[in-house]
Amino acid sequence: MIRIAIIGGTGYTGVELLRLLAQHPQADVCAISSRAEAGRPVADLFPNLRGHYDLCFCDPLDVDYSGIDLVFFATPHGVAQASMAEVLASGTRVVDLSADFRIRDQQTWEKWYGQDHQCPELISEAVYGLPEVNREQIAHARLIACPGCYPTGIQLGLKPLLETPGLIDLKTIVASCASGATGAGKQAKVDFLLTEISDSFKPYAVGGHRHLPEIEQGLSDICGEPVELTFVPHLLPINRGILSTIYVDLQDKSGPDYQLLFEKAYAREPFVDVLPAGVQPSLRSVKGSNMCRIGVARPQGRSKLVVTVAEDNLTKGASGQAIQNMNIMFGINETEGLASVALMP
Amino acid sequence: MIRIAIIGGTGYTGVELLRLLAQHPQADVCAISSRAEAGRPVADLFPNLRGHYDLCFCDPLDVDYSGIDLVFFATPHGVAQASMAEVLASGTRVVDLSADFRIRDQQTWEKWYGQDHQCPELISEAVYGLPEVNREQIAHARLIACPGCYPTGIQLGLKPLLETPGLIDLKTIVASCASGATGAGKQAKVDFLLTEISDSFKPYAVGGHRHLPEIEQGLSDICGEPVELTFVPHLLPINRGILSTIYVDLQDKSGPDYQLLFEKAYAREPFVDVLPAGVQPSLRSVKGSNMCRIGVARPQGRSKLVVTVAEDNLTKGASGQAIQNMNIMFGINETEGLASVALMP
Amino acid sequence: MIRIAIIGGTGYTGVELLRLLAQHPQADVCAISSRAEAGRPVADLFPNLRGHYDLCFCDPLDVDYSGIDLVFFATPHGVAQASMAEVLASGTRVVDLSADFRIRDQQTWEKWYGQDHQCPELISEAVYGLPEVNREQIAHARLIACPGCYPTGIQLGLKPLLETPGLIDLKTIVASCASGATGAGKQAKVDFLLTEISDSFKPYAVGGHRHLPEIEQGLSDICGEPVELTFVPHLLPINRGILSTIYVDLQDKSGPDYQLLFEKAYAREPFVDVLPAGVQPSLRSVKGSNMCRIGVARPQGRSKLVVTVAEDNLTKGASGQAIQNMNIMFGINETEGLASVALMP
Amino acid sequence: MIRIAIIGGTGYTGVELLRLLAQHPQADVCAISSRAEAGRPVADLFPNLRGHYDLCFCDPLDVDYSGIDLVFFATPHGVAQASMAEVLASGTRVVDLSADFRIRDQQTWEKWYGQDHQCPELISEAVYGLPEVNREQIAHARLIACPGCYPTGIQLGLKPLLETPGLIDLKTIVASCASGATGAGKQAKVDFLLTEISDSFKPYAVGGHRHLPEIEQGLSDICGEPVELTFVPHLLPINRGILSTIYVDLQDKSGPDYQLLFEKAYAREPFVDVLPAGVQPSLRSVKGSNMCRIGVARPQGRSKLVVTVAEDNLTKGASGQAIQNMNIMFGINETEGLASVALMP
Repeated sequence: MIRIAIIGGTGYTGVELLRLLAQHPQADVCAISSRAEAGRPVADLFPNLRGHYDLCFCDPLDVDYSGIDLVFFATPHGVAQASMAEVLASGTRVVDLSADFRIRDQQTWEKWYGQDHQCPELISEAVYGLPEVNREQIAHARLIACPGCYPTGIQLGLKPLLETPGLIDLKTIVASCASGATGAGKQAKVDFLLTEISDSFKPYAVGGHRHLPEIEQGLSDICGEPVELTFVPHLLPINRGILSTIYVDLQDKSGPDYQLLFEKAYAREPFVDVLPAGVQPSLRSVKGSNMCRIGVARPQGRSKLVVTVAEDNLTKGASGQAIQNMNIMFGINETEGLASVALMP
Repeated sequence: MIRIAIIGGTGYTGVELLRLLAQHPQADVCAISSRAEAGRPVADLFPNLRGHYDLCFCDPLDVDYSGIDLVFFATPHGVAQASMAEVLASGTRVVDLSADFRIRDQQTWEKWYGQDHQCPELISEAVYGLPEVNREQIAHARLIACPGCYPTGIQLGLKPLLETPGLIDLKTIVASCASGATGAGKQAKVDFLLTEISDSFKPYAVGGHRHLPEIEQGLSDICGEPVELTFVPHLLPINRGILSTIYVDLQDKSGPDYQLLFEKAYAREPFVDVLPAGVQPSLRSVKGSNMCRIGVARPQGRSKLVVTVAEDNLTKGASGQAIQNMNIMFGINETEGLASVALMP
Repeated sequence: MIRIAIIGGTGYTGVELLRLLAQHPQADVCAISSRAEAGRPVADLFPNLRGHYDLCFCDPLDVDYSGIDLVFFATPHGVAQASMAEVLASGTRVVDLSADFRIRDQQTWEKWYGQDHQCPELISEAVYGLPEVNREQIAHARLIACPGCYPTGIQLGLKPLLETPGLIDLKTIVASCASGATGAGKQAKVDFLLTEISDSFKPYAVGGHRHLPEIEQGLSDICGEPVELTFVPHLLPINRGILSTIYVDLQDKSGPDYQLLFEKAYAREPFVDVLPAGVQPSLRSVKGSNMCRIGVARPQGRSKLVVTVAEDNLTKGASGQAIQNMNIMFGINETEGLASVALMP
Repeated sequence: MIRIAIIGGTGYTGVELLRLLAQHPQADVCAISSRAEAGRPVADLFPNLRGHYDLCFCDPLDVDYSGIDLVFFATPHGVAQASMAEVLASGTRVVDLSADFRIRDQQTWEKWYGQDHQCPELISEAVYGLPEVNREQIAHARLIACPGCYPTGIQLGLKPLLETPGLIDLKTIVASCASGATGAGKQAKVDFLLTEISDSFKPYAVGGHRHLPEIEQGLSDICGEPVELTFVPHLLPINRGILSTIYVDLQDKSGPDYQLLFEKAYAREPFVDVLPAGVQPSLRSVKGSNMCRIGVARPQGRSKLVVTVAEDNLTKGASGQAIQNMNIMFGINETEGLASVALMP
């Protein structure tokens, strides 16, 4: 059994970790912290967990890291970095679901997140936890920076195109994305009331979203060259799911068979499903599951390729991917605890 | 392994059976039939099942019942009864999710379903598959009539009150219920388009819903006296879930501690969760799970008791309960394959 | 032109007043106040009003009541009462959309709203602004207490039954109601996030909702006897609309023709529409309109009558009714500015 | 008064025409036809119209065109063209909401709509009814081809950029659009059930949507050069609204002030609202209104310009625009009957 502590468990990635770990045969959740809810039973805040957990939230200062094998940070950015050195020093390994260690360039992080980084010395050690790109490094990592929700889908949608040099124009990529409202977390803000966002749809952060530098870093890592992305997120009036519709300019109109390129690239990936030619993914086909489904199209046979990527932002885009990382780190079956079928309808 | 055939698998109870059985360690789905979709891969119709099933739909006439241990009928009413005698004669056992064998009085069935019953000789053998009422008979049954979605919640909400004679007025019970749209099945009708029912709410079948005689029969079975119910269903603009708000007139204003009555009645039931005093269930706390959650209240200390019951109509209200019946019939752990946590948010 | 000031215009009843008044040929909105948003253009907060209003929010202390004919209070409870005496003294008339003057018994108000009443001397002068009950008093009133959203629908659904003595049991009435989330106003609370209430449904305030004493007072006024109501509100995952499903015990099973009773009672009412026998209202048939639609049914010919009532909680349940009151007070056509058709689909 | 007949009034553009015309002081709806519903009161099919219309649907063959000033065709494609010559011969004018006369090249129309055109001789006479482009021709037209819903938003979003030669690359434009489900009309198909599309999001018709040739024709008309568009529509789980997010490559990185360019271009348009710099439109700000709202952004100051356009597909995208055309044709105020405020929330 892997003995687990979750730091900051009252948000949506927290309850999603608990939902998934309840079905993981080798996971033992020993502690879950929340400053605000310390002492309250977890199942009182999250009634879906009644009967699955007897745990109460504890104060983060009361977590005893000795005997803990793995810590999940499910905290807002800026929190994990404050205690990371200490936590790692206790000998546990860490999967950080926040943005704290995702960006290698400290200045870039500080610019986009608007604060000083409190643990710059560990940035370079952190392994970016996208298994389809970094599986080997993940296996031996002490500190995993789990990718953001938008970055997961966009990188998986572009990886096969970036691995062969010269296929696409690296400066004109567009990712037009739409996310369910859980992407904003559980914040008591008027902007995220049902009455403000239901029965509607809108773009947001068009001027610049914090995931942009993370995505561009990841894409550049894959192809070894600078990549420029135009990234426009939109807010869907639903809970879960991100659909990324990616538009790229093909450099060579003859080019390879792109459908086949994608199918080969992901043939062995347990959580990436390339759909048959002509089929596009819907969000409901991934709801609650760790699967990422991808469609490839070349409208009118012209020089734009369209890649569509569906993921559940809380699962493959956050907590499911965190557990996938855990499975790799501890040498167990990568799909353990993650094999459940998406809820449809 | 229990070798399973599903007859009529293209509807929502069909895909829900497949979703749940994919996670059931002792289930082996050997055949799934559909006249309309024969030959088509199951995962083509239901993309959430990609990677979980290689099966194709087959013609119902091509199902080989030899070697099948259990047949689930997930067909519209009137279908199972046409082949039930033959299927049982092959030696398999059956869980019928349709309404065909739920009502013991043949004339009542024929009146409400508007057709002659084609297999009246098996009606009396059928066991009504509500485990919380009939667990023992289920264990040995050959033919289970799995309860309807509304009947499940309403019977569970009233059972503790009916078991003690004289607690409530049996002639004035009201069940004001609201169901997600999957309750109507997957019918190509204008009435069930998103554009007709989203962003709205309405009562329907106020003059008489087919579940009424089933519910009144079940309630009368529990208390041994005739029960009269006023039952008004409403249509929610969501996919899953039924909330039943039940109003009863207390005969004796002093009466017992109703909260305690419910807690005791269901203390050992794995799929009935009585919430703490003052707490009411929400549909999202049961979405995708087989759990039924119940709240009990006595507003203003007056003589009406209000019982609120949340269930997922496709899970505890249909396919989950069907599998719960299967587990009991085959002597395995009743919660096998049904332990997953509700998807929240 | 009626010169109008709106106090507290940043909430949903505020924007609804502005939406409706923009189409009212005799309304001139001269001032709209908000402490928090003073100085901000109204159309900046509510982009649907761009091109319709040039007004900015002003500080409530800066409103000049001289020259104002009518003040709408669209404030939380407790606010209007604090300045009511002063406002009326300036010579204007007032329609108060809040709960401050709805309940005649001061102690009852203080118990349910948890605070002392700051203007008890004006309670008895206030006219309860339900035109279908109090049209004449409204015409001459200086201060209107505009009914709550649930009270509007429930009173209209029961009025015809209460006007004839002895038709129904006054102690066993049940109102099982469901409201869209705008009923909770524009409060930055986790409980009202889309992620908490979408794709779900739940009862709330089962132990006692603040509208209960208002409703019981109104029902008792109509029939001249004490009425006891069991009132359970539920929260719908949509923006607008309240559906009230009302269950009453008929005293006399022979009784009158209830369909006819309702049709006659409301034959001349411009905003109450009794649907044909066998038809029930849906929320979408009243969305954005001031119409209240009612269905009447007697399931199985038994002794319960079921009345279903649909209203838009922001329109007939709040701002539309406030304008209907204004029209009556100023002697203009009661439907002026309120004749638009519900948005469907 | 303009005497109006509506051919094919049972769909969503039909009920939207009726909703808007009920508030139009110069509109007199004399006839509304439906083969399937002939004889049925309009308000029986559309309960929101109860009290607004006494009309019954009539058989299309029974419409008497003498005395009719204007006919709206709200029929599926292929219907209007079959009777257009005859209808025009009666001396009435026509606004055709269908696609029958939108595309000037007959072969292109026949290829995309999969049938022979039955009235090619009138194609060249038809005026494309986008008032912001063709106002003068509309005024004198006998036959208006009212634009499609997607084409309306995309053309309005690109027009200012196309009118100045050389601003943008005409071959790499992307329109990533999302539409509410009313865009699919009122078709009894499984694909459009609430249970299939609620709580989800997906791209569709990626390989080619029928609006593509119409849009490319319109864009080319504006700039006088061939334009190539990559157009990917998506299906939103809501009723109304289209958001078009348009990505263009700027030819000249210095270029003009694009915000100002848009503001000037639409300064006098009553139904195009350019939002302030930094603000993007949401669908709820246009729901039920004829307004089209546009945001302009240049993320990171790079060479892609992003234009976002919100419209209500049933209003500005169909029936509202049809009435705007009518107003222009009959020389009355262009905003008559179209001034109502969007329903928010």
